Amino acid sequence: MKRILFDDEHQAYRESVRAFLEKEVVPRYAAFDQAGIVPRDLFTGLGTLGAFGIAIPEEFGGAGVPDFRYNVILQEEAARAAVSPAILGPALHADVCLPYFLDLTTEEQKARWLPGIASGELITAVAMTEPGTGSDLSGIRTKAVRDGDHYVVDGAKTFITNGINADLVVVAVRTGEHPHRGLSLLVVERDTPGFERGRKLEKVGLHAQDTAELVFTGARVPVANLLGTEGEGFFGLTRNLPQERISVAVSGLAQAAAAFDWTVAYVRERKAFGKPIGAQQVIRHRLAELATEIEIAQHYLDRCILALNDGELSVVDAAKAKWWCTELQGRVVDACVQLHGGYGYMLEYPIARAWQDSRVTRIYAGTTEIMKEIIGRDLDLG
Amino acid sequence: MKRILFDDEHQAYRESVRAFLEKEVVPRYAAFDQAGIVPRDLFTGLGTLGAFGIAIPEEFGGAGVPDFRYNVILQEEAARAAVSPAILGPALHADVCLPYFLDLTTEEQKARWLPGIASGELITAVAMTEPGTGSDLSGIRTKAVRDGDHYVVDGAKTFITNGINADLVVVAVRTGEHPHRGLSLLVVERDTPGFERGRKLEKVGLHAQDTAELVFTGARVPVANLLGTEGEGFFGLTRNLPQERISVAVSGLAQAAAAFDWTVAYVRERKAFGKPIGAQQVIRHRLAELATEIEIAQHYLDRCILALNDGELSVVDAAKAKWWCTELQGRVVDACVQLHGGYGYMLEYPIARAWQDSRVTRIYAGTTEIMKEIIGRDLDLG
Amino acid sequence: MKRILFDDEHQAYRESVRAFLEKEVVPRYAAFDQAGIVPRDLFTGLGTLGAFGIAIPEEFGGAGVPDFRYNVILQEEAARAAVSPAILGPALHADVCLPYFLDLTTEEQKARWLPGIASGELITAVAMTEPGTGSDLSGIRTKAVRDGDHYVVDGAKTFITNGINADLVVVAVRTGEHPHRGLSLLVVERDTPGFERGRKLEKVGLHAQDTAELVFTGARVPVANLLGTEGEGFFGLTRNLPQERISVAVSGLAQAAAAFDWTVAYVRERKAFGKPIGAQQVIRHRLAELATEIEIAQHYLDRCILALNDGELSVVDAAKAKWWCTELQGRVVDACVQLHGGYGYMLEYPIARAWQDSRVTRIYAGTTEIMKEIIGRDLDLG
Amino acid sequence: MKRILFDDEHQAYRESVRAFLEKEVVPRYAAFDQAGIVPRDLFTGLGTLGAFGIAIPEEFGGAGVPDFRYNVILQEEAARAAVSPAILGPALHADVCLPYFLDLTTEEQKARWLPGIASGELITAVAMTEPGTGSDLSGIRTKAVRDGDHYVVDGAKTFITNGINADLVVVAVRTGEHPHRGLSLLVVERDTPGFERGRKLEKVGLHAQDTAELVFTGARVPVANLLGTEGEGFFGLTRNLPQERISVAVSGLAQAAAAFDWTVAYVRERKAFGKPIGAQQVIRHRLAELATEIEIAQHYLDRCILALNDGELSVVDAAKAKWWCTELQGRVVDACVQLHGGYGYMLEYPIARAWQDSRVTRIYAGTTEIMKEIIGRDLDLG
Ligand SMILES: Cc1cc2nc3c(=O)[nH]c(=O)nc-3n(C[C@H](O)[C@H](O)[C@H](O)COP(=O)(O)OP(=O)(O)OC[C@H]3O[C@@H](n4cnc5c(N)ncnc54)[C@H](O)[C@@H]3O)c2cc1C
Ligand SMILES: Cc1cc2nc3c(=O)[nH]c(=O)nc-3n(C[C@H](O)[C@H](O)[C@H](O)COP(=O)(O)OP(=O)(O)OC[C@H]3O[C@@H](n4cnc5c(N)ncnc54)[C@H](O)[C@@H]3O)c2cc1C
Ligand SMILES: Cc1cc2nc3c(=O)[nH]c(=O)nc-3n(C[C@H](O)[C@H](O)[C@H](O)COP(=O)(O)OP(=O)(O)OC[C@H]3O[C@@H](n4cnc5c(N)ncnc54)[C@H](O)[C@@H]3O)c2cc1C
Ligand SMILES: Cc1cc2nc3c(=O)[nH]c(=O)nc-3n(C[C@H](O)[C@H](O)[C@H](O)COP(=O)(O)OP(=O)(O)OC[C@H]3O[C@@H](n4cnc5c(N)ncnc54)[C@H](O)[C@@H]3O)c2cc1C
Repeated sequence: MKRILFDDEHQAYRESVRAFLEKEVVPRYAAFDQAGIVPRDLFTGLGTLGAFGIAIPEEFGGAGVPDFRYNVILQEEAARAAVSPAILGPALHADVCLPYFLDLTTEEQKARWLPGIASGELITAVAMTEPGTGSDLSGIRTKAVRDGDHYVVDGAKTFITNGINADLVVVAVRTGEHPHRGLSLLVVERDTPGFERGRKLEKVGLHAQDTAELVFTGARVPVANLLGTEGEGFFGLTRNLPQERISVAVSGLAQAAAAFDWTVAYVRERKAFGKPIGAQQVIRHRLAELATEIEIAQHYLDRCILALNDGELSVVDAAKAKWWCTELQGRVVDACVQLHGGYGYMLEYPIARAWQDSRVTRIYAGTTEIMKEIIGRDLDLG
Repeated sequence: MKRILFDDEHQAYRESVRAFLEKEVVPRYAAFDQAGIVPRDLFTGLGTLGAFGIAIPEEFGGAGVPDFRYNVILQEEAARAAVSPAILGPALHADVCLPYFLDLTTEEQKARWLPGIASGELITAVAMTEPGTGSDLSGIRTKAVRDGDHYVVDGAKTFITNGINADLVVVAVRTGEHPHRGLSLLVVERDTPGFERGRKLEKVGLHAQDTAELVFTGARVPVANLLGTEGEGFFGLTRNLPQERISVAVSGLAQAAAAFDWTVAYVRERKAFGKPIGAQQVIRHRLAELATEIEIAQHYLDRCILALNDGELSVVDAAKAKWWCTELQGRVVDACVQLHGGYGYMLEYPIARAWQDSRVTRIYAGTTEIMKEIIGRDLDLG
Repeated sequence: MKRILFDDEHQAYRESVRAFLEKEVVPRYAAFDQAGIVPRDLFTGLGTLGAFGIAIPEEFGGAGVPDFRYNVILQEEAARAAVSPAILGPALHADVCLPYFLDLTTEEQKARWLPGIASGELITAVAMTEPGTGSDLSGIRTKAVRDGDHYVVDGAKTFITNGINADLVVVAVRTGEHPHRGLSLLVVERDTPGFERGRKLEKVGLHAQDTAELVFTGARVPVANLLGTEGEGFFGLTRNLPQERISVAVSGLAQAAAAFDWTVAYVRERKAFGKPIGAQQVIRHRLAELATEIEIAQHYLDRCILALNDGELSVVDAAKAKWWCTELQGRVVDACVQLHGGYGYMLEYPIARAWQDSRVTRIYAGTTEIMKEIIGRDLDLG
Repeated sequence: MKRILFDDEHQAYRESVRAFLEKEVVPRYAAFDQAGIVPRDLFTGLGTLGAFGIAIPEEFGGAGVPDFRYNVILQEEAARAAVSPAILGPALHADVCLPYFLDLTTEEQKARWLPGIASGELITAVAMTEPGTGSDLSGIRTKAVRDGDHYVVDGAKTFITNGINADLVVVAVRTGEHPHRGLSLLVVERDTPGFERGRKLEKVGLHAQDTAELVFTGARVPVANLLGTEGEGFFGLTRNLPQERISVAVSGLAQAAAAFDWTVAYVRERKAFGKPIGAQQVIRHRLAELATEIEIAQHYLDRCILALNDGELSVVDAAKAKWWCTELQGRVVDACVQLHGGYGYMLEYPIARAWQDSRVTRIYAGTTEIMKEIIGRDLDLG
């Protein structure tokens, strides 16, 4: 069925995104992949396109239109063009980090940071995970101790997306004992003394994306960089999680849909036993199953996006979308590799890269198990 | 997320349906189940409630509001009240048979039949399947030979819902050689000479429902009972299939949702190892999975229902809804039986009956395999 | 691959079992199914055949050959002949109850009971489950209080196989407070004052099998009927569980294999779209999958049976066989119903009954969840 | 349950293999992975260990003990040591290529080639697949035209394991029109004029393994290098497929078992929410499921290996083992990645590499779909 999510302005924006990706990303994608990072000009390019300013008030350089559908379009077009990993950092910047800067900041902070965020000159990241803790935010141990106008931060974060590129890192730190009410959020800036990047990590996929360790050794962060109130960090984090999860669901489903399309094209062309392999009934039925599940997921996700726009998306519904769309991505991309035969295992085929990239979406932004935990607890079963 | 399918009038209708079922069906359900059939007064009772006249023009005794959402409500409430099999015959009458009488009839035929259909005094059935053919309509062999003002019909049909109760049976007959263009539709009336009921079949579930064989031995059917044009039967059948399939999807999903609710209640109460079994993490996650899939399916199906109302539902989308919702029903009800432990196997528990009833929805109105065939062929794979 | 489990004597026994079933059970099966119970002469008939005495020492009327392969043959042949439910009671007698009478009895008890058990004149049952507790044996509340030479027993049991037919019921009772060390086993005889049968329960399937409630109201059971030592009941129960679980696995797998064979025959014969439905690739692949899984399971189970014979089968390995074979049964029988189309839902087809019967094996003798718990705990994960 | 496959001599061999891998492969594995190929000394090292000569008659430098269990040990130990990709080439040499040289060769050819194969000085490969055909051997188009004492070979092969390292390549060529009876096998030697290596292909995993294109442009291959009879190539190929498939099944299952063990260790250590993550019930049950399936598969595969040793393994049984073990590998490794959380996506963890490596086993040596086709056709369904 026809999607009912988008209006004409979205369509126009989609075309500009598509053109941008064709021109600026596709030809350079192999180089990004090789380098393990995207260049800063990709951020400023997308900033010029308007990809980051959508929700930012006009006074701070944005469009002042908090409509997540524009964000969706970026992810969908990246998937279609087989360059999702290059867009992951920008998407994190726009979908995941920006809300912290919009919702928890003072006017002074807004003025300081939002214009650069909008233009893509200030690249952001968010750092919760540590070597010892991921799913369990209450296990965060990076410590921030007040010392006059500064917090002194000690600890380490890991798996940080945009870890190398980031200029502003929202860091979850421990300012008190209480597992939840002892957490706070600090914005750590690029040249903060005592803040260093650790290794850029080698991953199964997402090769164009810089995922890195961050190390804080007596790093001095001005109190003026505290986001919201001290001790309210946990609530800042969890309040932004629905949008983060929808972002991952969108990207997962878009990559599944792209893989499906490539595969339909492939099985029409590839011949064996005297006919296109798509003429084999088991292949026809397999693709019919995938088509069905992609379509069903898409309609649900589109409804979630509208609810998100209306500020009505619950944590539980976001969790449903997140785990289901990403598990579906896993199933779809895996099946599509199979239908490519040996070619599905060769990196020159986008489906092979899509498979490598796909494995992480069930893990980050909250694992499938944590999503089920959230949904299950809400059922109040005892 | 909140469903957006229903308006206030639907809500009011839902309450009247609920009251009707509580009063007229629930207390007599065991008796229907025992008898293997529902009494005719159930049809007239529902007729009075307005369940059959929704789409029938006012001049023929209906409300003239072709809105399938009312049909949906009947199925949903029946599932909630654990009496779906008792409502299957009426639902077939309203959802599946009625369109033949609305769309393919002459004014004379309308006047003759629609008032009784609306009131529930004329019960309908549709007979395509034969002992030798089900999925493959082109295999139909029941023959109708023109003899003056009559067709002389010979052959046998099987698995016919409302087979015993029906007053008017839409029978697919062969009037020519061509696999598809040789099929026609005749309305065979109760007392037609040469038309007899065969056995009422003993089924795994749906015990309150009469499924029967029909036998035609030189049955003389007036030419005035031909639906549409001779040779156009195949198109008459296939044109009605999307609505039939949505009807089955609705019923399947409603029964899944009901089973889920009963199970949530059960695992909250049932204790083992010193706590409610719902407190076990594997049970929590299992129910979280089912909750997710039910919700996702519901949103898709609701969209299909709106498309159906608008005359825009494609055969392919109906097929997607049909197979996915009924396969989901199978998974959900099976899991719910498991969570009831030994009680799930005892017929005094509704979940046990729901399991027996559930097995057929993946088979009738087009099997899962046939649905995938439809969807797959539409992908044009070679 | 050829099974390597059986020798020539087993083959000879298999033929005598097959002949017995063909003659004594198949023609009367519909009547048993209708009655909801098998007649006592089925037990004595099987006793004469030697089905119960295999492991019983010769001095007590048996063959003195503790070889579980003979037990396996009875279940396999019953499945093949589509009469498994009629054989469930006898199999419980031979596979599950007998070990209590062999392993935990005094010489006096042996002399009193074993000859009747061997001949089938004394029918046995084992009663652990209560309305309030099943998986959790420590929740047993049926109380036995010592009063001179008797125990006075109060409480209720439910879901008891052979509940109506049984002459001797091994009842798990609470003789002390400790969850495990407070349990004991008493043999309650048919005419014990204060012991009554409750309802024969109506089940989804297994219609030829009497499953019943048992009620104890001040029932006086001689101390001479205590099995083993007071307070050792829990260990008596758990020690016999591997054999019980293998028995259920054997029956589940045999029923799966039978369903598979019927379905292969069916899809070869049934025609649609101008050829046997078995010629459709999706059906061919589905059956190839089932064939593979049945074969793999069979080889594992055969190994377990040999280990059981050697007294070396661990609780964990029995749990693996139990859950996997019965879940496989569920998958296989469900798929086979589907491949029968509408006929799969009609009780006149054995596959329809096999589906109804199949649903319980994942529940009784320890649910799938409890099996996974056993296996998982053995992995010592923290 | 204890495996019953191995004797004491196997155990001794296992230890020598383990020591070899620890010493010669593990420390250099990262380098192999980087280079995309293993050095030739790995082959000669394994030759000295005896890994290639097992089945080769003593007169040609082998041990003359055709016992595939030794081959199994090499794969199992490689998996355990997390170096399977480095051993894939040697395993292909020993498990897949050697039989061609043993079974289809003349005495002259044996004398010429077997000693080098045994010592590892002559590395072998087998080349069936072409850019245009893989599953369908009848689509092979590489042409060999007789010209005096030579065949002139033109065409291209792709996806050839050991493609760069190989000294002797068994090439399937077309010597006639008939789809099957027009195929022959030629041994093409390293320095044959007109034979060139194409690209070494970049793959999703198996990075230590050289998979390459081969190009034949008027390559002149002596008739003395024909294997068996002209026109019998198809039968030579298919006759060796069971052993090839068992080899892949063994390697798949061994890698699954290794991944399982790493994960058990991981979940015991990793803490979240105040306890080891292994203490979470869903993780316990997930691992219980995997443990069960690995064990069941292992027993089946061990039986296949004995049947293979006895020359009794059917094509159908090998197909069952192949698809089921490799699909299981896929499920296991995927689940194990998930249980590692973010670390499962980092290449420094063996589980991440195991995931990349795992994807190919369902594809090569005959895809899962082709295996099901073989099994299904054998059921003779119509
Ligand atoms: C490529 C990549 C990019 C990332 N980017 C960022 C980033 O930008 N910023 C950031 O802060 N983090 C980031 N992460 C970290 C990511 O969010 C975490 O990896 C994730 O939340 C899981 O945490 P973990 O790895 O510590 O796994 P763990 O929490 O150790 O979990 C291990 C396993 O245990 C399971 N588990 C845990 N608790 C339970 C439970 N109660 N019940 C059942 N199962 C349970 C998990 O589901 C998982 O399967 C990134 C990770 C990756 C791989
Ligand atoms: C309770 C009940 C009520 C019913 N009510 C009615 C009714 O009111 N009116 C009526 O006309 N009919 C009715 N039916 C019949 C029903 O629509 C048919 O049973 C159904 O369409 C399947 O047909 P079949 O039973 O002949 O199966 P078959 O067509 O014989 O199919 C057998 C199996 O083969 C599979 N198969 C068939 N073709 C293919 C293919 N090309 N590729 C892959 N797989 C294939 C099917 O999916 C199925 O699994 C009812 C059936 C039942 C059980
Ligand atoms: C036909 C039939 C015949 C039977 N015959 C006999 C007999 O002869 N003698 C006899 O003593 N009993 C008999 N039983 C009883 C049978 O053994 C129990 O039904 C079974 O052990 C489950 O117990 P329950 O029904 O109390 O379920 P519950 O224990 O209440 O379990 C309900 C659900 O919770 C799940 N669950 C429970 N604990 C956990 C946990 N820790 N983690 C995760 N999930 C959990 C279960 O798996 C199940 O899904 C029979 C039952 C049937 C249906
Ligand atoms: C790493 C690697 C190493 C390899 N090593 C070697 C080697 O050493 N020597 C060698 O000769 N080859 C080798 N191969 C090739 C391998 O054997 C083939 O890739 C494989 O047989 C599949 O062939 P294909 O890639 O042409 O896929 P195709 O045959 O094109 O198949 C594409 C898809 O269609 C499906 N399909 C095909 N026919 C049917 C059907 N009738 N019904 C249903 N589905 C069907 C397949 O299952 C697959 O999913 C290797 C491949 C890889 C990836």
